[in-house]
Amino acid sequence: MSESTPVRRRTIVNKHEISDKRMNDQKTQSQYQPYKDAAWGFINHWYPALFSEELPDQHVEGIQICGVPILLRRSNGRIYAVKDQCVHRGVRLSAKPTCFNETSIACWYHGFNFDLETGVLNNIVANPDSTLIGTTGITTYPVEEVGGMIFVFVREDDFPLDDVPPLHHDLPVRFPESGERFPHPLWPSAPSILDEGAVALGMHRTGQSNWRIACENGFDNAHILVHKDNTIVHALNWVLPLGILPTSDDAITLIEDEDGPKGQMQWLFTDRWKPVLENKDLGLKIENVNGRFYRTSVVLPGVLMVENWPEEHVVQYEWYVPITDDMYEYWEVLVRVCKTDEDRKKFKYRFDHVYKQLCLEGFNDCDLYAREAMEEFYADGTGWDNEQLVETDISPVTWRKLTSRWNRGIAKPGKGVTNATKTSSIRMRRLAEGKAPGYFVEKIDDLNKH
Amino acid sequence: MSESTPVRRRTIVNKHEISDKRMNDQKTQSQYQPYKDAAWGFINHWYPALFSEELPDQHVEGIQICGVPILLRRSNGRIYAVKDQCVHRGVRLSAKPTCFNETSIACWYHGFNFDLETGVLNNIVANPDSTLIGTTGITTYPVEEVGGMIFVFVREDDFPLDDVPPLHHDLPVRFPESGERFPHPLWPSAPSILDEGAVALGMHRTGQSNWRIACENGFDNAHILVHKDNTIVHALNWVLPLGILPTSDDAITLIEDEDGPKGQMQWLFTDRWKPVLENKDLGLKIENVNGRFYRTSVVLPGVLMVENWPEEHVVQYEWYVPITDDMYEYWEVLVRVCKTDEDRKKFKYRFDHVYKQLCLEGFNDCDLYAREAMEEFYADGTGWDNEQLVETDISPVTWRKLTSRWNRGIAKPGKGVTNATKTSSIRMRRLAEGKAPGYFVEKIDDLNKH
Amino acid sequence: MSESTPVRRRTIVNKHEISDKRMNDQKTQSQYQPYKDAAWGFINHWYPALFSEELPDQHVEGIQICGVPILLRRSNGRIYAVKDQCVHRGVRLSAKPTCFNETSIACWYHGFNFDLETGVLNNIVANPDSTLIGTTGITTYPVEEVGGMIFVFVREDDFPLDDVPPLHHDLPVRFPESGERFPHPLWPSAPSILDEGAVALGMHRTGQSNWRIACENGFDNAHILVHKDNTIVHALNWVLPLGILPTSDDAITLIEDEDGPKGQMQWLFTDRWKPVLENKDLGLKIENVNGRFYRTSVVLPGVLMVENWPEEHVVQYEWYVPITDDMYEYWEVLVRVCKTDEDRKKFKYRFDHVYKQLCLEGFNDCDLYAREAMEEFYADGTGWDNEQLVETDISPVTWRKLTSRWNRGIAKPGKGVTNATKTSSIRMRRLAEGKAPGYFVEKIDDLNKH
Repeated sequence: MSESTPVRRRTIVNKHEISDKRMNDQKTQSQYQPYKDAAWGFINHWYPALFSEELPDQHVEGIQICGVPILLRRSNGRIYAVKDQCVHRGVRLSAKPTCFNETSIACWYHGFNFDLETGVLNNIVANPDSTLIGTTGITTYPVEEVGGMIFVFVREDDFPLDDVPPLHHDLPVRFPESGERFPHPLWPSAPSILDEGAVALGMHRTGQSNWRIACENGFDNAHILVHKDNTIVHALNWVLPLGILPTSDDAITLIEDEDGPKGQMQWLFTDRWKPVLENKDLGLKIENVNGRFYRTSVVLPGVLMVENWPEEHVVQYEWYVPITDDMYEYWEVLVRVCKTDEDRKKFKYRFDHVYKQLCLEGFNDCDLYAREAMEEFYADGTGWDNEQLVETDISPVTWRKLTSRWNRGIAKPGKGVTNATKTSSIRMRRLAEGKAPGYFVEKIDDLNKH
Repeated sequence: MSESTPVRRRTIVNKHEISDKRMNDQKTQSQYQPYKDAAWGFINHWYPALFSEELPDQHVEGIQICGVPILLRRSNGRIYAVKDQCVHRGVRLSAKPTCFNETSIACWYHGFNFDLETGVLNNIVANPDSTLIGTTGITTYPVEEVGGMIFVFVREDDFPLDDVPPLHHDLPVRFPESGERFPHPLWPSAPSILDEGAVALGMHRTGQSNWRIACENGFDNAHILVHKDNTIVHALNWVLPLGILPTSDDAITLIEDEDGPKGQMQWLFTDRWKPVLENKDLGLKIENVNGRFYRTSVVLPGVLMVENWPEEHVVQYEWYVPITDDMYEYWEVLVRVCKTDEDRKKFKYRFDHVYKQLCLEGFNDCDLYAREAMEEFYADGTGWDNEQLVETDISPVTWRKLTSRWNRGIAKPGKGVTNATKTSSIRMRRLAEGKAPGYFVEKIDDLNKH
Repeated sequence: MSESTPVRRRTIVNKHEISDKRMNDQKTQSQYQPYKDAAWGFINHWYPALFSEELPDQHVEGIQICGVPILLRRSNGRIYAVKDQCVHRGVRLSAKPTCFNETSIACWYHGFNFDLETGVLNNIVANPDSTLIGTTGITTYPVEEVGGMIFVFVREDDFPLDDVPPLHHDLPVRFPESGERFPHPLWPSAPSILDEGAVALGMHRTGQSNWRIACENGFDNAHILVHKDNTIVHALNWVLPLGILPTSDDAITLIEDEDGPKGQMQWLFTDRWKPVLENKDLGLKIENVNGRFYRTSVVLPGVLMVENWPEEHVVQYEWYVPITDDMYEYWEVLVRVCKTDEDRKKFKYRFDHVYKQLCLEGFNDCDLYAREAMEEFYADGTGWDNEQLVETDISPVTWRKLTSRWNRGIAKPGKGVTNATKTSSIRMRRLAEGKAPGYFVEKIDDLNKH
């Protein structure tokens, strides 16, 4: 048997190796380290939790945002949100909703009873004189309901209620008050979900990727290539560019007002951005004829607004709500101000019969799958260092820096919560049953019928 | 672009935050550290492995207890139990049972042949003169069969056979000999599976949670709230309390005899515990009328006995047999002494047509799901520190301390065994096929038909 | 409550414990440490990627070998192979194949366009003047197509193209040129896939185990016990031994020529190996009558050749191509030299109607399941230390040492690639959908129909 030493091969540099050239060089990356750390999301922000119609009166629902388990209950016209984890032995209260009166939630397992307003442990079913009563409790979360959507302020346990900002700080800029700063000839007054008469129609579903790569897709002006062949584009003969290139330093304006949202506005379809309609070397040319102008902006904690989309007088909002470090709840919402019932009906009809299938599904399905296709590269955390960004990535790079400065907290990795222990056998059993990890709590009564 | 420093918010203490008040303070926790370490179970104890009828003559079955793969074979009226892992290349012998005679088991892959009595490697199919023969082997496990159940003493490889205690050291106390110490007016002589004529009827299935949170549920006197709405309770109009509160220091008696089981007896339905039938503030009141007295005790390695349940002259036994650190085999067994065939038939009829559906399923399904609902909180090990126990938790706290003192060994985390490597692709494939992780070995011949 | 100290039991040595006696003692193991490190495979070697018919003209396919994502495209009669991961944001190019011309592949997400010949980034759809163009690119892989199979040289990014060895260095020895060195009276000239007129018929599928335990099964002369009851064996009344024992020191000859493959030839069915047809103590005797002589050899990077199998003038090749550290692509190929169309048709007929079902499936299914049955023991890496090898394991031990000396590189654990992050939620969703981890990329268009 040969005892020769191992073959030592020459190591020479391959001519075509991946270079270090990129938009996101070391110096740039160091400016958004907090963003790179925010795998579980930015906490102490307002997030959409449910559509109003998903929470009828006396209904209880359990969800998870930024690794925080949250229970919502609507009772007598008021919505409460509290931490969905019993202080006693950690079960999710919403797994088997048990309410003995209109202002409390009880743990179905050992009877700990919590006041929904304050979160305080105010009774124990079989131990009403326990010395623990009144000394402990579960965190409560501020709630706002507007335009058919329920928003929750997801806070750390010790974030002071007195410091909770108003909802509009975590929503896109509004018009007409921002009309002077961000004028547009075609839609001087884009609607807001906060407007009187605003109607929000939409859907939400779980995407199996990190929320950041999901969010960056929304306002990235090169990603629209994935929509090149979409049905809605060709049915309506829209001119959808191959991509949109920044042409000047002020292509993006930061939004950093003291008393308002923090984000960025992109001056699309002005001379600061150039829609690319042809690539001769690759033989590509957009042949459609109907202009379809829009403008995208994004604000913390990851709210996209697409003005004038998918039709006039409508805006599309999107949220990419972190569930864990590798799942997000994808919200797609069309908002229109409807002054009459007739308006509302028409908007609903058009939503149900055109936009839901062809835009929120169809068109945006491509985005959903594109983000999931990125997940493998980013899942172990090394993608953020290895990606090689280019000029069009000015949008995500600006976003990363901005959110690194203005976020109100970086969510800690979930402990003792759903899908935090990736291999727990209860998670494995759900997979075997064909249930992918998701946003909602599984209710015990759906499992157990006796 | 703004270069301002990040917003620094005030950190003030929330009035309603989770307090440190709890039964299980630091001092108490330190008294049960061995219990907290026993994620994979207590080893060197007797555990139920199979019902007798699950192992017909010449049948071979493979299971796993405390991370130890175990093969059982019944041959000529004797049951053998050996380590189910070939010393050669580690396959499970039971995956394709191969027996060339009545006292050995061969490895189906490369023909290593082991004596079932001693475990010694006594032949290799195509290498009968190998120098390895007679020098190595697989661990053997003592076996007992009583009342229709097969018990195995699951030992570490180097635990001496001479030190193996009798089975009754790991089973509940017996009557009438314990009648003086633990008297009860209604059932002076509860049956034992060790009694002559004892018949054990029951079932076992895999629960996807750690064995400790499963076991604690059984004798926890606040957990019965989960049964409040069960069919059997209302069909028979049972008075099932909301919970049962300890009222004196001697509510629990330790069982620590030199020559017997180690565990604890609870003096339920005496003046040392108060059944709670009403909670006025929460508007709860038990309206049923038929008394349903019972008494629970538990002994190492986690055997529950519920005397006088679910009917007179019957006891319910339960085991929570550790499989891995996140799965256990849940055993539910009703035991009755049947003196005649007629008695046996009646008991079997009542079991088949009432108790199996309404008690072991139905009623106890609620327990199974409750334990699984706790798993997420405990799965990463932090739940044991973060839980906030109360007065009724005197039962599990006493148990944790007792077992920390009296267990015969803490099982080591499984290595090279089924479901130990949580993400192995073979485990993933089984999930994709709809098979949750479980107790039994998958047989190759069920996969491969040619 | 007792405060006695924990029971301390004696620790004595069990008479039947596992001994340290084994072929693979410490000294031997140290001679194959590189092999033990090669969980992700040996890199810088030629591997089969696809059958020719799996890649029609203009078709694009994505696979993974040694943790390297690889895209293949056939265009105008030429096959290209490049790294299947965009330098920009890491998506797999093959997830949605997009080719704007015949010599490039574009990223479907943001339009990065790569030259297939050089790998260079030569255009960006909406950013044709980007400064990044021409400065970066993706790694290319040499390709060879012979006998109906496509081979790819899977290299590290910096392995010089000039150093790529010819394909025949990573294929079995050829005849007649090796006839003098490895003579055999029954098949003086076994066919090679490199022979003129060679036809390769076969199949490939994913095995859920590490490639090394898969590969070792192929030439291990004790493993044939798993085939004892196979249909083909008894249908054709073959004499398949219980195992084959080495009888002299030169039972195996190393193949270590400067300009050729590195591997080992086994002198089966010569006097250096003894087929074992009986084991009296176990009552086993082979009763079949038709001799079925064969010879096995294996060369880097894990190519088995079984000469004279399953019939005269045919050889069976097998590859165990590493995908990740716990999956491999199992290739089974029968090769015959067919001089005429008639020959080809006959061979194809016999393959389709006999050998595919009874050999490649049937017979070899047993091997597939046997390897998967070993995976649990080896999955955490400790199996290599704990296994207890015997005399017949001279074959794998020789192989381990040989490959430790002659491999061209040890593949690094995959980062940012499919199935590298074992618990990513996108992998979990695929499991929930019933899809086990595998070799091929999932195409987005199969998911998304709008």
